[in-house]
Amino acid sequence: MLQRRIRLPDDKIPTQWLNLAPYLKNPPAPYLDPATYQPASPEQMAVIFPMGLLQQEMSADPWIDIPEPILDIYSMYRPTPLHRAYGLEKALGTPAKIYYKNESVSPPGSHKTNTAVAQAYYNKMEGVTRLSTETGAGQWGSALSFACKLFDLACTVYMVKVSYHQKPYRKSMINVWGAEIFPSPSDKTNAGRAILEQYPDTPGSLGIAISEAVEDAATHDDTKYSLGSVLNHVLLHQTIIGLEAKKQFDMIGESPDVVIGCVGGGSNFAGLAFPYAVDKISGKELKIIGIEPTACPTMTKGEFRYDFGDTAKMTPLIKMHTLGHDFVPPGIHAGGLRYHGLAPLLSCAIDEGLIDAIAVVQNDVFKSAVLFAQTEGIIPAPETSHAICGAIREALRAKEEGKEKTILFNFSGHGHFDMSAYDNYLAGNLIDYEYPEEKVRESLARLPKIG
Amino acid sequence: MLQRRIRLPDDKIPTQWLNLAPYLKNPPAPYLDPATYQPASPEQMAVIFPMGLLQQEMSADPWIDIPEPILDIYSMYRPTPLHRAYGLEKALGTPAKIYYKNESVSPPGSHKTNTAVAQAYYNKMEGVTRLSTETGAGQWGSALSFACKLFDLACTVYMVKVSYHQKPYRKSMINVWGAEIFPSPSDKTNAGRAILEQYPDTPGSLGIAISEAVEDAATHDDTKYSLGSVLNHVLLHQTIIGLEAKKQFDMIGESPDVVIGCVGGGSNFAGLAFPYAVDKISGKELKIIGIEPTACPTMTKGEFRYDFGDTAKMTPLIKMHTLGHDFVPPGIHAGGLRYHGLAPLLSCAIDEGLIDAIAVVQNDVFKSAVLFAQTEGIIPAPETSHAICGAIREALRAKEEGKEKTILFNFSGHGHFDMSAYDNYLAGNLIDYEYPEEKVRESLARLPKIG
Repeated sequence: MLQRRIRLPDDKIPTQWLNLAPYLKNPPAPYLDPATYQPASPEQMAVIFPMGLLQQEMSADPWIDIPEPILDIYSMYRPTPLHRAYGLEKALGTPAKIYYKNESVSPPGSHKTNTAVAQAYYNKMEGVTRLSTETGAGQWGSALSFACKLFDLACTVYMVKVSYHQKPYRKSMINVWGAEIFPSPSDKTNAGRAILEQYPDTPGSLGIAISEAVEDAATHDDTKYSLGSVLNHVLLHQTIIGLEAKKQFDMIGESPDVVIGCVGGGSNFAGLAFPYAVDKISGKELKIIGIEPTACPTMTKGEFRYDFGDTAKMTPLIKMHTLGHDFVPPGIHAGGLRYHGLAPLLSCAIDEGLIDAIAVVQNDVFKSAVLFAQTEGIIPAPETSHAICGAIREALRAKEEGKEKTILFNFSGHGHFDMSAYDNYLAGNLIDYEYPEEKVRESLARLPKIG
Repeated sequence: MLQRRIRLPDDKIPTQWLNLAPYLKNPPAPYLDPATYQPASPEQMAVIFPMGLLQQEMSADPWIDIPEPILDIYSMYRPTPLHRAYGLEKALGTPAKIYYKNESVSPPGSHKTNTAVAQAYYNKMEGVTRLSTETGAGQWGSALSFACKLFDLACTVYMVKVSYHQKPYRKSMINVWGAEIFPSPSDKTNAGRAILEQYPDTPGSLGIAISEAVEDAATHDDTKYSLGSVLNHVLLHQTIIGLEAKKQFDMIGESPDVVIGCVGGGSNFAGLAFPYAVDKISGKELKIIGIEPTACPTMTKGEFRYDFGDTAKMTPLIKMHTLGHDFVPPGIHAGGLRYHGLAPLLSCAIDEGLIDAIAVVQNDVFKSAVLFAQTEGIIPAPETSHAICGAIREALRAKEEGKEKTILFNFSGHGHFDMSAYDNYLAGNLIDYEYPEEKVRESLARLPKIG
């Protein structure tokens, strides 16, 4: 019988996270104070982040222990299964072997849970009682609500307005886990009110929602801010994905030739890819590919330079691939990929030639998603479907070339709360947004010139 | 560290289903022809069912082999995990140990997949090219669409109208898997048209939707009918749940004192309970409890007698617990439990004193659901939440009595497509329907007097 799932034994779960920074030739540049453009001090950062996470953010250690209470929560759903996509392979008629790491099995339904649990834990340890955050399509907001409930923290979520209305049941889910949620821009913050006044019809963006959540944390003593991607500590927490995958491949005596993930801020991709990037740095031949939407092509069209993490310029400046902090991407269904910036660690890895990038259009993405659902069963999130689209391209290339190749991608989350997107796709209503070149050029032109 | 999940190794998956019939003192009475009230012949039944399933329906063998192609599809998500509900136990402060078998991990999200795959397989083997079916809340329609796609069968789903509108994304899911779906009563069948003419505003019922699906199959040569619960072969396929659970308890050297499930037609409950019922027949002390809604109290208020399986009296007559085939239950959110009848095997088991039954109201059910989601993470389907409600009552009783007791319940499915029900509950809008005594009495009075 076919072995469709490779399940790692409980006692083989990784007990350390992997930090890519010490393996890079040029680790990320320091964060800069948004007022002075000078390096931000830990004290400044500590207004919105707990020290435990800031230490990880700055760490030069290659391995960081996962605390026992976090491993305990992880054990509710981890280790996650590695699947062999026999059904998809057959439908494609490819000689390639396709594997996917299934992060959709966590209760909130995505990889986001891995860092949500860790962030809730470190905040709890330092006496924080409430977390504020932004969310795009809702995967992150759900995950943090779930984690906060388990650690008895209050939670406030600012959800990008277009997604809030596209995916009403994410709000219900977040409410069930006891958190409060507002469509962003909202009238709850100065940042939100200012944007609503200037652009009352804005669909919102992750950049705007981050401004609101950061302001909320900065103006309340009991509250810290929590980010679902981009930052070093977030990517660190996600590396358990790739570390598990490597052990699972060891169990079956195989190893991937191509590693693929979708990229918004970059954390699910980095989580799978960084343990493999370390092998690549050590000389292993390996292709690592990030897939992004043409509507928000941060990796393929963004510039690698200092920019703000949010629209209202409240966060420190980060050296990263960016399309400009006031760029508002078209309202594609993959709301989790609508971010103007990119994780600095991932930006550095691209800069050092470790990682390739491809941009794809919505209709190709949903075509891939439906084929996957009909052959492998699980209905993927629109974000995840970008990775599937990339994996299918690689598998078809292998077929053309007549090459046996092993492809691994990250199945970052299910699409149970994204069904309206499928309705739109099946009705033929999805727009294939091209690269919004002029808007990006204008947005980049407004950036401060630093370094 | 706590062991929250007990995972059965792949090579320990049961390879046979368990048939309860030969263990009963009085196995189910024969099905009767709806026109003559004489025992229905296999030839009559073969108009809508394939022979492979009819043989299982009539079988007196205690064990039936699971064909390899079914085991192969099962391996996409089985064995399913057994969870220890440490979070829920702590919240309740109970000395009881609470375990749940997690059937929500199948791609369609519930136990229904176990029989959907088997039914699609046996139909495919006999050259059928399309299946028609009914669905309540949509769990079954999703599962059959998924299974039909994997075996390259067309699929037509009649979904109870009230649920069709409450849960629009079940339709999307069914469409993604390539099936067609109509709200029932529809204008596609004589049965549907007749009911629409008489009751244009009816919320629909499982009984009506079954009439439509049976008519569709009976009037198309290439099409057979597929039922998601009630029948012996359906319950048979579900016994893999309890068989796996027993092996998982063996792994940890424990055994349940109480086994609980929610009951609509009875298949998820029977799937978990029947392997334990066999132990009880052999003398093991064990409580087995089915939980049903007060709005549709088939076990606690129904009569054990012959009735039709559907509203339009097209199916054979079945001796079972029934509220009357034209009883239309109030539109509770647990659409999967809105069935007037009960599996004949389960009816017999109740009659022989093997099984106890309790009816609960919606608000208690959703209170239990939210507590579960906030402590164990997974958001349960409204149907499943009846089982949780029952398990919580047992756990609180154990607390009162100061007894250490091991409780097992079936987590039959997740509630990702039922979030509007949670919205209604959290907004305080759910009605606690009492036993609709008069309607049931009237409906029962209209039944044919047989035997």
